[in-house]
Amino acid sequence: MELIKGGVCAAQGFTASGVHCGIRKNKSKRDLALILSDSVASAAAVYTTNLVKGAPLVVTKMHLANGKAQAVICNSGNANTCNANGIEIAEQMASLTADALGINKEDVVVASTGVIGQPLDITPIANGMPQLVSALGDNSDAAAEGIMTTDTVMKEIAVSFEIDGVTCKIGGIAKGSGMIHPNMATMLVFITTDCAISPELLSKALSNDIQNTFNMVSVDGDTSTNDMVCVLANGKAGNAEITEEGDAFNTFMKALNTVTVHLCRMIAGDGEGATKLLECKVTGAADEAVAKTVAKSIICSSLTKAAMFGADANWGRVLCAIGYSGADVDVNKVDVSFISAKGEIPVCKNGAGIEFSEEKAKEILLEKEIVISVGLNSGDASATAWGCDLTYEYVKINGDYRT
Amino acid sequence: MELIKGGVCAAQGFTASGVHCGIRKNKSKRDLALILSDSVASAAAVYTTNLVKGAPLVVTKMHLANGKAQAVICNSGNANTCNANGIEIAEQMASLTADALGINKEDVVVASTGVIGQPLDITPIANGMPQLVSALGDNSDAAAEGIMTTDTVMKEIAVSFEIDGVTCKIGGIAKGSGMIHPNMATMLVFITTDCAISPELLSKALSNDIQNTFNMVSVDGDTSTNDMVCVLANGKAGNAEITEEGDAFNTFMKALNTVTVHLCRMIAGDGEGATKLLECKVTGAADEAVAKTVAKSIICSSLTKAAMFGADANWGRVLCAIGYSGADVDVNKVDVSFISAKGEIPVCKNGAGIEFSEEKAKEILLEKEIVISVGLNSGDASATAWGCDLTYEYVKINGDYRT
Repeated sequence: MELIKGGVCAAQGFTASGVHCGIRKNKSKRDLALILSDSVASAAAVYTTNLVKGAPLVVTKMHLANGKAQAVICNSGNANTCNANGIEIAEQMASLTADALGINKEDVVVASTGVIGQPLDITPIANGMPQLVSALGDNSDAAAEGIMTTDTVMKEIAVSFEIDGVTCKIGGIAKGSGMIHPNMATMLVFITTDCAISPELLSKALSNDIQNTFNMVSVDGDTSTNDMVCVLANGKAGNAEITEEGDAFNTFMKALNTVTVHLCRMIAGDGEGATKLLECKVTGAADEAVAKTVAKSIICSSLTKAAMFGADANWGRVLCAIGYSGADVDVNKVDVSFISAKGEIPVCKNGAGIEFSEEKAKEILLEKEIVISVGLNSGDASATAWGCDLTYEYVKINGDYRT
Repeated sequence: MELIKGGVCAAQGFTASGVHCGIRKNKSKRDLALILSDSVASAAAVYTTNLVKGAPLVVTKMHLANGKAQAVICNSGNANTCNANGIEIAEQMASLTADALGINKEDVVVASTGVIGQPLDITPIANGMPQLVSALGDNSDAAAEGIMTTDTVMKEIAVSFEIDGVTCKIGGIAKGSGMIHPNMATMLVFITTDCAISPELLSKALSNDIQNTFNMVSVDGDTSTNDMVCVLANGKAGNAEITEEGDAFNTFMKALNTVTVHLCRMIAGDGEGATKLLECKVTGAADEAVAKTVAKSIICSSLTKAAMFGADANWGRVLCAIGYSGADVDVNKVDVSFISAKGEIPVCKNGAGIEFSEEKAKEILLEKEIVISVGLNSGDASATAWGCDLTYEYVKINGDYRT
């Protein structure tokens, strides 16, 4: 497997674009994105488990019922959620896109992100559509920018891989930042591949993958109303279509996982106000459920997150978060260490503190990527969760988001 | 029922004290507190559900097995948790107290609060004990100060009430601030009463009460390792001992609830870094469990908390928190309004936004006490939860707590 450039346009037969159409006041910020496959593709998506669901998700779910799609239209600046006319507007977004592209309305995936509860005006989207369509090309960057809200960096990646001697490519873009605590998917991830795979197997691959990737990310414990991960596979690579589990499916799963883990890390590291990417690795768990519960509890602990912001080796908060996680853990067997590019420092052994150099700990924790390593010493299962520190900036961004 | 002064010393036969013994470096901050009943009292306590439990809680649980106690010793500045010699140190705290007072070691309740995972030196406690005992008197304030950590205000209250024409009193002190998301009790609440009540009924009263009081408070979603609510009832008021449910028990429950709700509000309003007390009132729920789940989900939402800090009427975050709460709610029936001393403003009706004056909303949300009122319109059950806003100060306090 090899890292390549091109994001969602890396795979054969995919183009993308992003423009400023006027949903956002800031004219330098693109707010409308489009991804197009030359031909109808296998498609699979997973959605938020929040009972309050964005109108675009409802429409997309209907459109993907047949496991096929050809284009993705997505705006930022307004979530089109909790609006009386939300479904109607989302359908209009699909129609406008389909008409401009000459494809079926039912083959359009619709997504929106931004403020909840403010009516979304279709006018700027209609006005921006011609420019959006004419800009289609090798423009994954522009599409990635078009779906950003409070994100500070574009999130994209692509890899190439081989199936039966045929080179396939898969790439994705994502937006994250706040309201990130996915319980089924995360806030807007679009993945494209030219690998030939049936809708059923594509759906299976995605559903399996997110359990260990997007569902293990948390920025702030708030599960959004508009989370969606969507994969389009147009088969342009020319491999024999994957229609059952086996070597080819496993190779595809591995490529998909490379893309999703990369995007998870980017989403967590670019969490609203974040200065650090936190990765919690739990090993030695009795089973995977325990490992996941513990990892996610630690990554979600406000106190642990604030300590990491302060580069404070306050491991007691890690123990505390393990203790209230709800997982059945023997707390007297727990080991904890902090790891970064500057090295590793064990701070807790068998549930009790051990002597360590505060100076060395500080040096390690001042890095931008921190691993909180937890050994439960009760079995062989493991899990990884991703998050970020809690900062002044998070409060600032969210204390005044709408205005 | 009448509000009275005196805190834990309001009830007949109770004295208290608080001194600086040297656990904390800041000499102007008391760090050791004592509460004494003239005679052995009925006693009940509830503890954290965190699997990592502070050593003092383990010792206290053993001491309260017979439903009796006479004194409470509590230090701040060190939680005595995750320490290899924790139990031994907690036992020593009980012994030193018992010896100094001439009472049984098994009648001493032990509690600690502060940093987790740093060995607690018994020396300053031993050295401070004579001064602590000689200072015993009508000093609820000093005891309340002695148990504070990052609290900014003392938390105490007392009320008088009548049972069968006999005047009884009940009063309490509390500490809260951070790591507050009780799941069985909250961080250190001590309540005294001269009402005569059997240990069994006292325990029942406390267990019932906390379900709607301390278990409905959250500052940061982190359930502490040292939470404890403890009530001592010495019977000095002279009422016929309450040994069964009925009018007298109900009167006692009402007085207890007045004390606990007051302390809950003080703990929430003085949450680490908080500038506002948030009260979430959920009505019209199908059952109480739904009402509680929804109220707590809203009070715990980082995004809602940050919006309240910014006095931003971002009700979409309230809807979002209802949607991911896990409760079975028809989100299309939800009404939301914000209430404060400046008035009430409805912002959402039947799950969708309604027009409202942003100016009026701002005026209401700039107040120090905000009620988030949620109508589910699906039944008659209701619940209230208490929390606070999320501020820069919370991050600052917790980014550098140990140093």
